[in-house]
Formats: sequence, structure tokens, C-alpha cells
Amino acid sequence: MPIYNAPLKDMEFILNDVFKADEFWQGNENLAHLDMATANAILEEMAKFSKNVILDLNRSSDEEGGAQFNNGVVTTPKGFKEAFKQFAEGGWVGLGAPEEWGGQGMPKMLTVLADEMIWSTNPSFMLYPLLTVGAGMAINDRASQEQKETYLPKFYTGEWSGTMCLTEPHSGTDLGIIKTKAEPNEDGSFNITGTKIFITSGEHDLCENIIHLVLAKTPNAPAGSRGISLFIVPKFHVNADGSVGERNAVSAGSIEHKMGIKGSATCVMNFDGAKGYIVGKENEGLAAMFVMMNYERLSMGIQGIGAAEFAYQNAAQYATDRLQGRAATGVKSPEKPADSILVHGDVRRMLLNVRANNEASRAFAVYVGQQLDITKYSTDAEAVRKANDRVALLTPIAKAYLTDKALDSALEAQMCFGGHGYIREWGMEQCIRDLRISQIYEGTNGVQAIDLIGRKTIKCGGTYIGEYIAEIREFAQGLDDGLSIKAAVLDVCTQVEDITAFIVDQAKTEPDFSNAVAVDYLHVVGLLSFVYMYARISQAAQPKAEAFFQNKLVLAQYYVAKILPDLAARVQRIQAGADVVMQLPEEYFTAQS
Amino acid sequence: MPIYNAPLKDMEFILNDVFKADEFWQGNENLAHLDMATANAILEEMAKFSKNVILDLNRSSDEEGGAQFNNGVVTTPKGFKEAFKQFAEGGWVGLGAPEEWGGQGMPKMLTVLADEMIWSTNPSFMLYPLLTVGAGMAINDRASQEQKETYLPKFYTGEWSGTMCLTEPHSGTDLGIIKTKAEPNEDGSFNITGTKIFITSGEHDLCENIIHLVLAKTPNAPAGSRGISLFIVPKFHVNADGSVGERNAVSAGSIEHKMGIKGSATCVMNFDGAKGYIVGKENEGLAAMFVMMNYERLSMGIQGIGAAEFAYQNAAQYATDRLQGRAATGVKSPEKPADSILVHGDVRRMLLNVRANNEASRAFAVYVGQQLDITKYSTDAEAVRKANDRVALLTPIAKAYLTDKALDSALEAQMCFGGHGYIREWGMEQCIRDLRISQIYEGTNGVQAIDLIGRKTIKCGGTYIGEYIAEIREFAQGLDDGLSIKAAVLDVCTQVEDITAFIVDQAKTEPDFSNAVAVDYLHVVGLLSFVYMYARISQAAQPKAEAFFQNKLVLAQYYVAKILPDLAARVQRIQAGADVVMQLPEEYFTAQS
Repeated sequence: MPIYNAPLKDMEFILNDVFKADEFWQGNENLAHLDMATANAILEEMAKFSKNVILDLNRSSDEEGGAQFNNGVVTTPKGFKEAFKQFAEGGWVGLGAPEEWGGQGMPKMLTVLADEMIWSTNPSFMLYPLLTVGAGMAINDRASQEQKETYLPKFYTGEWSGTMCLTEPHSGTDLGIIKTKAEPNEDGSFNITGTKIFITSGEHDLCENIIHLVLAKTPNAPAGSRGISLFIVPKFHVNADGSVGERNAVSAGSIEHKMGIKGSATCVMNFDGAKGYIVGKENEGLAAMFVMMNYERLSMGIQGIGAAEFAYQNAAQYATDRLQGRAATGVKSPEKPADSILVHGDVRRMLLNVRANNEASRAFAVYVGQQLDITKYSTDAEAVRKANDRVALLTPIAKAYLTDKALDSALEAQMCFGGHGYIREWGMEQCIRDLRISQIYEGTNGVQAIDLIGRKTIKCGGTYIGEYIAEIREFAQGLDDGLSIKAAVLDVCTQVEDITAFIVDQAKTEPDFSNAVAVDYLHVVGLLSFVYMYARISQAAQPKAEAFFQNKLVLAQYYVAKILPDLAARVQRIQAGADVVMQLPEEYFTAQS
Repeated sequence: MPIYNAPLKDMEFILNDVFKADEFWQGNENLAHLDMATANAILEEMAKFSKNVILDLNRSSDEEGGAQFNNGVVTTPKGFKEAFKQFAEGGWVGLGAPEEWGGQGMPKMLTVLADEMIWSTNPSFMLYPLLTVGAGMAINDRASQEQKETYLPKFYTGEWSGTMCLTEPHSGTDLGIIKTKAEPNEDGSFNITGTKIFITSGEHDLCENIIHLVLAKTPNAPAGSRGISLFIVPKFHVNADGSVGERNAVSAGSIEHKMGIKGSATCVMNFDGAKGYIVGKENEGLAAMFVMMNYERLSMGIQGIGAAEFAYQNAAQYATDRLQGRAATGVKSPEKPADSILVHGDVRRMLLNVRANNEASRAFAVYVGQQLDITKYSTDAEAVRKANDRVALLTPIAKAYLTDKALDSALEAQMCFGGHGYIREWGMEQCIRDLRISQIYEGTNGVQAIDLIGRKTIKCGGTYIGEYIAEIREFAQGLDDGLSIKAAVLDVCTQVEDITAFIVDQAKTEPDFSNAVAVDYLHVVGLLSFVYMYARISQAAQPKAEAFFQNKLVLAQYYVAKILPDLAARVQRIQAGADVVMQLPEEYFTAQS
């Protein structure tokens, strides 16, 4: 059976040593209730829950075929109900939610780490509370006081859950063409009619009510994305006293049969004149929904880290135990029939690739978490402005670059197992199947890249990335000259500056340019971000003699020597431009060859 | 449902225009029975069989859970029996086998293309005849005349099938430590005892007998790989008249539950003093088995092309049909709610990556096939020597580079579908699950890379790759200066020469060096090979005005502009050396973090 032990020591290192969390929390009156001791205690609790309660349910839920659909009713896999009850009673649903509504008020810097453990051990399970948390954020941000009072406390006790209903069969990335209709009633409510697909947790048996957040078009709404409104559509109507009443006209038509995350119910939802309540203003639904989408997007990055950490731990253990061949430098374990495969450079290469990306990813998630915390808790307007820009810039990296690296990592970890990695019992193949969706949902990674290069870079003339590079360069200049990463970071800053200027310039005359090079640019900014994380990790580790810290300096060298070279390839591709991508006619692609 | 149309036009182009197959065949008395008209007719027949008979069985076999095991008996998926009967009756099992034993005597250049179609449409099905073909080759090469007469004709009628039994629970890559024993009987036969795992087609219901080729150790055999012998162990004893007799003491203990290729029965085989017959000489079993392994390794590359071609066709069709967003250069289809996603550069980038690697892979497989044909059919001793060296060098590329590129391709093709790619009904997720094994079995891709850099490059001081580069350089120098690929190929030749010299030099003093950089070198030689293929494709296409040919010149430009840049990253990684890979202690990898 697969193993998992939460990487608590690395988590503490990142919070405490790299990002000086105590200082940050104590220096902010809204976060002063938290210190490292409390943070560690929370993470230790989650480490136990993830390992002891949900890890085994991950394999068993996949083996039994995942969530089951029968005549509109969805049954979650064996053990999910009990685990969710325990999860909710532990206060985990509202870990990052406002205390006012029954949450724990914990900052994002911390919740990303707790979330990682759930993603490591049971991604299907994670998706049930995740959508609730996202729906809660949208309601907290945009809904009326009465709506907040009605729904939020029920979310954080785990009694009710939430969904986000965006996609329709013909409308995914392009939400401007949705067809779901919202017809106003005299009492101010609306009748919602339409079909939504790919609705995570659209129907299930973990909660007594499900609150759908639905995008729909009111009569005479403007065409395209400016004519979309957001509605609350409860599965069961809510009585005046807050109790659950009659069934609303919304139901699951089926669930999808998927590559992975089979324990998570992905539903087709039919709205047949279901009663809905508008959230915020008419035609401003997309902006309201994006409060939730941005939150989910960071979460997908954490899904990536979680899976890659799980994959790493299992591969490292397997490689240690597996005896095959002998070391090139001479027999290492003469008492055994063969040496551990850890003697082979190629096995180490795979494990180090995974570990180097994992540790950078985790640090980066905490960094973005801290930026989000600044936007939410800081009272310094300029700091909030800067952090908002930074979050805007880095959300596509957090979603897409982290999940791209995570899939690469999980595949390399699987390869360490040889044929055993292909067999279900080791859990590696499920890890890959479950992880793959993270690159696709909540906006494909290609769409993230287009967001990064378009709205976040070209549109502002490179200001966001310019400020980010300035921060990185200043940090690197402060590093000890004895750290070899210093020169690498400064060099990368210059390269990214140059290629960004080239992109901003090309985009002025070539409408197709940005889309054609977007993914390469996403990886450029991802590499910049990770080498920056290794600069911060190196600075924090350098003064500490213990092997745990000194090994981080070696891993940073590994990153520069073996992973950073990808930058050269990405830059060359961007320089090669868009013509060769765009010049073939559309019919070329499907012409019989 | 997934679609598939065999790429017959590209296949003909590669055979006829790029590799001048007619000339090659007609110029060789052993192949003069074949011409392009016959080749095309054979490929057209296979195109029909693959599309009409086995394509639909691919999805249905996966949906029904694949091969079933019940008390030692394996039942293949619904429809496999009938399809296999039709396949065998069509003479497909022996397409490349000697006519003397009932085969069709077709050259490898042609059979790789027929095989590709089966790999495209039903990889699980393909694995049943594939192992028979491999076993037939080993028997033809090493067994006694009597053994050949007993087994080979039955293989090519499809009445009996073959297996290769190498792996044991503790012994995969390192076959020197196998434990299966062969104890001699007085009549010259042996009693075989041991457990073999991951045995493809070890037990099934398609044939009346199964002939296992088993690696085992005789008493007092030398330790390690020099003490391994090869045995024929039939499932049913064969009577003197060639009919099937009593059951032998070999049986399947279970089948594996796998990520993919579920229709293929992967068996644990128990040999309980089963009667076996030695093939060739005692202690020379590994060499005999490698006749078969090398054949399989090229086949795995074809599995890669097949899957990536299937993925491409489905993704290109989906992208054409899917309407989402508008072109950056202005609305393309004003009469539709949105433009085809083919207007977006990022979608084109993915499709072109897949197509560019596919067309190069197919050409490369035919090139290696031609080299194999020279080794088998040529009467020119120097030509045979050169072709043998070339095959030795390129087999790891054919196996590992082609399957690495194929997985990348299948993943990019899946991404073109957005969320629909993650749903089972489109067939993309199954394609990836089925394909993934090609990187793992028949020697993992890491092991292939070590073979390339070690035995095939460092051991001969770079002679093999030197001869290959000389051929490529000479070819490129003969290209029209108007072809932009000319300069690219010549530049790559120099880069690969330089990095090879560096590797050969480093290996003299650093025992760990080659293993640590092996995979990067494999990709270097893969890129060299593919750019060489585009040189040959460009030369053949240049004089032809039809769009089909001229578009190949554009695809070659795409390859140089957008895929070849990976070379820069690979070279940098090799130059960074092995120290940073090897310096951390073994306990680092599993230490609690």
C-alpha cells in the first residue's frame, strides 16, 4: 500500500526560516492571534488526519469505481461520509474562512500547507470541501448580508456544501456563449433553466443541502461575457428559520466516467426552472465568480504539489528498497544480491527532479499565499496594491506551472518503479490519473498561459513582471557571494526582462504572437519563480550546519545545473515567433495524410 | 466514439519518395518479389482491418475491464477471439516471417507501417501476436531444425502463440539474479521451476497452445548473466505427430491490474517442474533472448507512433469542430457563435508538436526498418556491418525516444479537448493509459539511454555515432541551399559531435558520469535523428508542388523553430555533469522532510 508522511519539517522551514511567518503574523494586528507554535500544531493535526483517515480511502474509492450514480442520487465511496464528518467536526472546512461565520480565520500561508496534505492523500475527497470554500468566498465577497447569514455558517459546519456551475456542453473557456437562462419572478427571485456539465460535487450524500452558484443570462442581457449574472440555487429550498425545505427543480442527470478522481462526483446538472437568487448586481456575475476561480486556481497548484510529494515519497522508498545491478564505482552492498537502485545516476536524476520541483513549488505556494494574505489583512494601501498585482501575475504560474511540473514529477516517480509503477497496487498510476485533471480544469494550463502573457503582461506593458523582477534582483543582490545561486538568479532576471520586452514589442504588430508563445512564456516565468525560491531557500539554509539545511543548498545547485537549462529552450522558441505556427490553413490539420 | 483513418498517403510518401523503397527492393534479389503496388495493397488491407475490426474493440475491452482471470483460466475481451481468427487467417501473424515456415517474407520497412495501424487502433490486441512474432524470431535464430519444424508453422497460422518469460519478482533489469531453475532429465529435457511475472499473453483463450520461452539457470551455472539458459516450455506437451497432448506443469497464478492495456493479459506464471527444452547452448540464453528483445524494442517505438497518430487524428478533428472564442486577427466565422479553436496559436502549437514528432517518428521507424532489412537481406558484407552498427546505435532511440515523444504528444492531444479529454468516452485518456507502458516495458527508457551512452557510444569510443553523423552530414551537404533545414542539420551534427566527445572523455575518469547524463544524451541523439528525417523528408517533398508535399516543408521549419531548441537544454545538462546528481547520501532520499 502507498505510504505518506507529511513533510512537516520542510513546511516549518519554509514558514519560519524562509518567509519569517512569525514576524509577518505578529506584525499584523489581524493575524497576531497566530504564531509558529499554533501553526505547527495545526499542521501536525492535519498530518494525522491525512495519513490515518483519508489515505487508505483513496485507493479503495478508486478500486470500487468511485462515486456511484443511481436515478439522480449520488453515493460517495465507502468511508467518505465518516471521514467528511470527522473533517467537518475538526473545523477544517472553515480553516481559512472568517471567524465571523464560524471559520478559523487562518491565513493562506498556512492553509496552503494543510491543503497540500489532503491533496497528497486523497484528491477526490478534497474536492468536496474545496468547492464549498470557494462558494463561501464568492458569497462572502458579493452576496447580501442576509445571504451570508443564511449560507456561510452552514458551509463551515459542513452541513451544507457548495458548487460552481459555469460550463455548458458548448461553452467552456468561452463563457460568453452560455445559454442558461434566468427569468425574473415578481418576488425578486429568478427561474433558472439550462444544463451545466462537469459540476464537481453537483450531487452527493455528504451534506444535507447543496448550494449551487450558477452563471446564467437574464432576459435582454448584453451579449457575451458582459451579460452574465450569478445566482444562488439551493438543492433544497431554505425555510425562513434556516432549516431545509422542499426540493428545488435542480437535479443531477448523470455523472462522468473519468480518467481519475473517480471518488469525486462530476455531474451533469439540469436546472428546470429552479428557483435562484441573484448574487450582487445583474450582469456582474463573471467578476463575482472569478473571486472563486482565482482561489480554485491556486488550489490546483497545491493539488499538483500534493500529488508530486506523494509520488516522491513512494518512489524514494521503492528505489531505496529495490535491489538491481551494481554501482558503477564498485559494489556498494556486497552482502546483498544487488545494490539499491539509488546507486544509479539515472534513478537519482528522476528523484532529484521531483524533489527539486516539489520544494520550490511548496515555497512558491507559501509565497503566493503570503501575497494573498497581504491583500486581505494589510492596512498599507501601497503594499496591498503591490500584492494584488503580484497575485494577478502569479496566479497563472501557481495554477499551470506547478501542475505542469507536478505531472512531469509524477511520471518520473512512476518510472522509478519500472513495471511495478504500471500496476495498480503501488498507487502510482492512480496518482497520475488523479493529478492529470489539475492541468485541465479551472481553465486549462494553456488558458492560464494566455492570461499571463496577455492580461497580466502585454496589457500593462510588462509592469507587473517588471516589479517582480525588481524584487528578485534586489533579493539576489543581497545574497552572500559564496552562494552559487546568486549569479544564476541575476542572469535569469536579465534573460526574462529581455524576452518580456521582446514579447511586448512583437505583440504591438502581431495579433497572433502572444497566443502562439504563451506556454513557453509561462514556463519562463515559472523557472524565474523557482530559481527565486531557491535563492530564498539558500539564504535561509546557509547559516545552519545541520544536514537537513545544507542539503537544501545542494538541491538548489541541482536546480540550477539540471532544471534551469530549460530556460534556454523556452527563450529560443519564443524568439522563433508565431508565423510558423499560424501559416498552415485550417484544413491542413484534418486532411487525410 | 474515437475515429481513425490510416495515414496511407504519408506512409506511401515515406516508403516511395523518402526511402525509394522500390529501388531498394528491386535491387535486392531477396526482396525483388515486392514492389510499391503490392506494399500499398497490403497497407490498404491493414487499414481496413484496423479501422473496421479492432478499433471499436479497443474501447469496449477497456470498458468491460479487460482480460478476466478465473481459477487459472484467462478470458480475453469480447470480440478478441473472432478478430484474432480473422487476423490469423489474413496471414498477418507471419507478415514479416520467413516464407519457409509459412510467413509472408515481408521486409521490416513495410511491417513497421502495418504494425503502426494495429498499435493505433488496439494496442492490447496487438500484444497477442506480437509476442508470438518475437518468440518465432528467437526460435528461428537459435533453435534446432526439429524445434523450428515443431513450433514455427503453428505460430504463423495463429494456432499457437508465444511468450517471453524473463522477469521475476526480485529481478527485472538485472536478469543476472534470476532464480528459476532448470534441472536436466535423462532424456535431454529439463524440469523448470520458478515464478515469472509480467508475462504478456502468458495465458489466454485465443490459441490452442502457448509456447513459453523461459530464462532459467541450470545447476552449477556461472553466477550472473553468463549463467542463463533459454528453454521452450509448452503449455500443452506436443505429441510426436505435432498435435497437442497433455498439460505441462505451467499455469497462470493471476493477472495484473494495470493502468492500461487492460485487454492484454499480463500474467504471473508458475513453473512447477514443467518440462522444458533447451534452445541453443547452455548459458547462452540471454543472447538468444535478446534477438527477441531487440525486435520488441523497435515495436515499442511503433506502439508510440501508433498511439500518437490516433491521438493526433482525434484531437485535430475535435479542435476543428469545437467553437470557442474568436481569432485574434478578427472574427473568422461570423455565422457561428464562435470560431473553431484552430484559430488559437496555442491549440495549433499542440497539434503541430504532435504532428511534427509523429511524421519524424514514422520516417525514423522506416529508416531503422530499412537498416534491419539490410542486415537480413543484403549480400554486401560491409553494408551489413554498417547496418548492424547503425541498428545497435538506434534501437534505444527507436524504443525510448519515440515513446517519450509519443507520451508528450498524447498528453498534448488530450489537452486540446479541455475537460472532454479527461472523460472516458472520447478515448484520449485510455490512449494515454495504454501508451504509458511503452516507456516502461522491454527495458525502461532509462535503461535504453544507458545502453545508448554506454555499450553503443562510450564502449566504441563514439565510432557508431560518428558514422551516423558522417552519413547525416553528407546527406545535408547535398541539400538545396534554399532549404532552411540544411544549416540546422549541419549545426546539430557539430553540436552532437562535440557533446559526444565530451562524454567519451568524461567517462574515462568518472564512472558515474554516463548513467547520470544518459537520458539527456538519448534526447540529443533523438533530436539529431528527427532533424535528419526532416532533411530527408524536405529533399523528397521539395520538387513536388501539391500542398501535401509543400506543407511538409513547413512542418520541417516548425520542427527546427519549435522542437529542436530542446537540444540547447539537453546539452547544458550534460555539460553540468554528474557530481550534483551523485553527491547526496542515500539516506537523504527517504529522510523525513
